[in-house]
Amino acid sequence: MKPTSIDNIDTVCLDEENTAVVIIDQTLLPNEIRLLSLTRAEDMREAIYLLKVRGAPAIGVTAALGMYVLSARSNETEPDAFAEEFQKHKEYLNAARPTAVNLSWALGRMDSVFRRAMQNMQTPSADTSESSHADTHNANAADWKSAVLEALKQEALAIYHEDIEVCRRIGEHGLTLIHDGDGILTHCNAGKLATVRYGTATAPMYLAKERGLTISVYCDETRPLLQGARLTAFELQEAGIDTTLLCDNMSASLMRRGKVQAIFVGCDRVAANGDTANKIGTSVVAAVARKYGVPFYVCAPTSTIDRNTPDGDAIVIEQRKPEEVTEMWYEKRMAPQHVKIYNPAFDVTDSEDITAIVTEYGIAYPPYIDSLKVMFAKKEGAS
Amino acid sequence: MKPTSIDNIDTVCLDEENTAVVIIDQTLLPNEIRLLSLTRAEDMREAIYLLKVRGAPAIGVTAALGMYVLSARSNETEPDAFAEEFQKHKEYLNAARPTAVNLSWALGRMDSVFRRAMQNMQTPSADTSESSHADTHNANAADWKSAVLEALKQEALAIYHEDIEVCRRIGEHGLTLIHDGDGILTHCNAGKLATVRYGTATAPMYLAKERGLTISVYCDETRPLLQGARLTAFELQEAGIDTTLLCDNMSASLMRRGKVQAIFVGCDRVAANGDTANKIGTSVVAAVARKYGVPFYVCAPTSTIDRNTPDGDAIVIEQRKPEEVTEMWYEKRMAPQHVKIYNPAFDVTDSEDITAIVTEYGIAYPPYIDSLKVMFAKKEGAS
Repeated sequence: MKPTSIDNIDTVCLDEENTAVVIIDQTLLPNEIRLLSLTRAEDMREAIYLLKVRGAPAIGVTAALGMYVLSARSNETEPDAFAEEFQKHKEYLNAARPTAVNLSWALGRMDSVFRRAMQNMQTPSADTSESSHADTHNANAADWKSAVLEALKQEALAIYHEDIEVCRRIGEHGLTLIHDGDGILTHCNAGKLATVRYGTATAPMYLAKERGLTISVYCDETRPLLQGARLTAFELQEAGIDTTLLCDNMSASLMRRGKVQAIFVGCDRVAANGDTANKIGTSVVAAVARKYGVPFYVCAPTSTIDRNTPDGDAIVIEQRKPEEVTEMWYEKRMAPQHVKIYNPAFDVTDSEDITAIVTEYGIAYPPYIDSLKVMFAKKEGAS
Repeated sequence: MKPTSIDNIDTVCLDEENTAVVIIDQTLLPNEIRLLSLTRAEDMREAIYLLKVRGAPAIGVTAALGMYVLSARSNETEPDAFAEEFQKHKEYLNAARPTAVNLSWALGRMDSVFRRAMQNMQTPSADTSESSHADTHNANAADWKSAVLEALKQEALAIYHEDIEVCRRIGEHGLTLIHDGDGILTHCNAGKLATVRYGTATAPMYLAKERGLTISVYCDETRPLLQGARLTAFELQEAGIDTTLLCDNMSASLMRRGKVQAIFVGCDRVAANGDTANKIGTSVVAAVARKYGVPFYVCAPTSTIDRNTPDGDAIVIEQRKPEEVTEMWYEKRMAPQHVKIYNPAFDVTDSEDITAIVTEYGIAYPPYIDSLKVMFAKKEGAS
């Protein structure tokens, strides 16, 4: 399957027969668009581990759809063996990227539904008399299994649809912050390719395009792994949005020239006070934006807001391996041998540098300790 | 010529016979140390344009030594033709890079000396009687040419020696701003490799090392051409200084953790009000430093201070080709085809973000419009 564009293709979805998880292989972007059909647990785990699919929301959806596909393809006919296999697959996928919270969150949701469905199935099965012969047993087996599979499918599709809906609503709220003709800067990829559709930071941009607004988007390349160059610039250009790529150290030059009216970024975790951990370099952009008076917006699904983390100092930052900095594509060294490397994966943007946090329940303004509570109150009211 | 270390090798110098400009080919660093002998104007311009030699002071010295070498190798025997060739070479080299003031400044100095020497030569030549035959004319030609060449050589070597002296004096003044145990961040390469020896921003670091102070230096890699990774980290590590490399977007993370006590950068041009053009990304570091209260020092030989440029808005910024951003080593593309690229070579740091400007005549503090005048008064008093 070799499409010529990623437009109208979800980053993650079920195939038409509901027998495989289909993803865009992101390791080949921007040079080649290839879709992968994942039917085996090994392929799903590898796709997540090797970043063929990446971005916390997209990983969660992949795992949820994956658990349904693996269950539907199971040959097990006995409830105990079926349940054992389910647990085995769940743990296997969960270990693909232990730090991504959406992965275990999505698998946890699938597990709860599975347990509830299996329990529902076992209550009537207690009535089965000892005299029941093989045919009856098989017929019952088909019944319980299809009921469980239907429950799993509904939950997986709910996670998939919720992702689309949350991004779209972030887009709607974020769109109110954009004016016709704006130049918008973004960092890393909090785009369509990190979710099913729309993205988080990019959702307002896609909606602006849909509504006929003219915008120009500037993408930081995002060293060391170049997600901005390889993914964000690619997906925005594919969508027909006016896109310009720049190195991470060029944002001040751009803002000094008055080219940027707003900055939209995603996030990995937002603390209760609004301090935000996101891809390394985000807080550099925020400091520059503050100097030039450019509004700096964080797009955050409420699932990334961690009310148990009081502030940014409490967020643990992963250090990654030196080769990401010293060797491009792991082919040719571009730094002296044995030099020390500082390579944190994320940084913390102080809440004081954030103009607003855009959630699916509305826009939170400082002080965030209060306004984020209002977002959660809306969320709890809605559910 | 393949040395194993750059220690004790000048970045730019004349060869022993004074017939070529010898440079370290910086495009091959840090993987290979190779010296290049430049004898033709095309090679000199290419070396400057392709950044085989780079850094404003080193470019100035290359151009000065280059003009002497080209003149010494000239086959012209007629003063007018010789002068015409000189002007042609001067303009040809001057067009190699538009932003660096040292290039036109060094060429201007060589031009003044050339004109003066030619004029001195023409005064006695007016005495030549019509009866002089061919032999006498040739002998006179040799005389005027060797006198002019000697003047050019002295001026070129003066520029070379002044560079070494100026850097060392910047180092002495800058050293007073460093404390034992300091973490120091620098951007791009305003190092030994940007000058003949010592560097500008690195001169205080080399002197700190000489005097036995313990310092840790953090080098921004400096996209797109990675001068920080390839050159600064390399030369500091060669000198035995504790060196850590980071991507340009990691400086805020480092400062938030309290690792940086001072920032030293070089400059390509300082305006009369202290606004400073330097490698793209410098003003990003300055904005971040301001947020975290870290002092930000610009090391500027007075030759880079342009009193005819009132402020940063008057400085022309060179835009470079997109491939520098989209293709690492010009081998593998890392951005979508046809995407627009923003790739300015320099940015302007506002004088308000600069704690002090360190010159060879002392340290200038705000307001720079006054303090830079004091530096020039000292310079004029010294000359």
